[in-house]
Amino acid sequence: MPNSRKRNTISRHKDRGHYDEKTIHEILDSGKICHVGITLEGQPFVIPMAYARQENALILHGAPNSRLLNQLANGLPACVTVTHLDGLVLARSTFHHSLNFRSVVAFGKARSVDDLQEKHAALVLLTEHLAPGRTKVARAATDAEAKATSVVRFEIEDASAKIRTGPPIDSPNDMKLEVWAGIIPVTTLEGEPMPAPDLAAGVVYS
Amino acid sequence: MPNSRKRNTISRHKDRGHYDEKTIHEILDSGKICHVGITLEGQPFVIPMAYARQENALILHGAPNSRLLNQLANGLPACVTVTHLDGLVLARSTFHHSLNFRSVVAFGKARSVDDLQEKHAALVLLTEHLAPGRTKVARAATDAEAKATSVVRFEIEDASAKIRTGPPIDSPNDMKLEVWAGIIPVTTLEGEPMPAPDLAAGVVYS
Repeated sequence: MPNSRKRNTISRHKDRGHYDEKTIHEILDSGKICHVGITLEGQPFVIPMAYARQENALILHGAPNSRLLNQLANGLPACVTVTHLDGLVLARSTFHHSLNFRSVVAFGKARSVDDLQEKHAALVLLTEHLAPGRTKVARAATDAEAKATSVVRFEIEDASAKIRTGPPIDSPNDMKLEVWAGIIPVTTLEGEPMPAPDLAAGVVYS
Repeated sequence: MPNSRKRNTISRHKDRGHYDEKTIHEILDSGKICHVGITLEGQPFVIPMAYARQENALILHGAPNSRLLNQLANGLPACVTVTHLDGLVLARSTFHHSLNFRSVVAFGKARSVDDLQEKHAALVLLTEHLAPGRTKVARAATDAEAKATSVVRFEIEDASAKIRTGPPIDSPNDMKLEVWAGIIPVTTLEGEPMPAPDLAAGVVYS
């Protein structure tokens, strides 16, 4: 954290730290919800938001009267974090239990996206990231709708990824214990589409 | 946020806000990873951590040299957020696309858990929350292992939950469009146990 090291330096388990854009972008592109941190009068706020990556930035949106977005648009220092839980790591000792995960912690500042064309493009990107293909079938946003949405672009100034994969790492002394060890994989599953109760007959999911 | 409202007041979609402990605790108990926000020299940090709820508090742990834990143990104001994505909400217009989710934003301060008995109990609670049943089969933590772990208890001073459920809410004008509308449910799935490569033959998962 400050002074003695850069804000994006991984100090614990350095071998799990990654700083290359490819790794960072892959983790960002695999998620739909990020956690946005800002500080107001010394109080940190961590707010979950939908997002999409655009180049080395994240698009965030919300209602025009959102204070979080307004504060972000003011250029307040922010931290945006995305985490995927990939597995429960079950060791022979409770001490060596762990989690497999991929996370990105990104530092930077946001700016308001006000240009209408840029805003429409950002909203299309966001919708396509959250629900791929939908901008091909759903009615596009009107200018009035775009104007009724706040959009900010959070520019990543520096970031780090942290990744743990693989089996548990037990102490040599514990290897003789007759305790099951391994991984319970954790995945995020998108299920079968459930039609809205008011969907007209004959309109099929595509 | 500050001054004009309490820090845990839901301003947008007030109908989606909940302040009762039962709702808040249920959302916390359904997750394994939280996002912890603290501020150091004006810079917010949002760090993913495993957690377990203990009464109206969250147990967090890590390495003794973890700066985040040390800062938390110093009683720095913190914000801890837990979010579950439950569904993609597909509307007839891109504007009314949404996400179904449950989240808790909790404000408070942490204290270091130093008493060895309290620490062991907190670590058992944490292991049982992350991997139910494992403290019955895995070797228990020794006093040396407990001493080699930093544990903090984050006391929730105030919190709010926000929940969106149900189908899309389209504009009346869009109801005639032949666009599929509904929900893609999103769930977190724990898969089949995968034995560690060095697991002795005959040790079965239980």
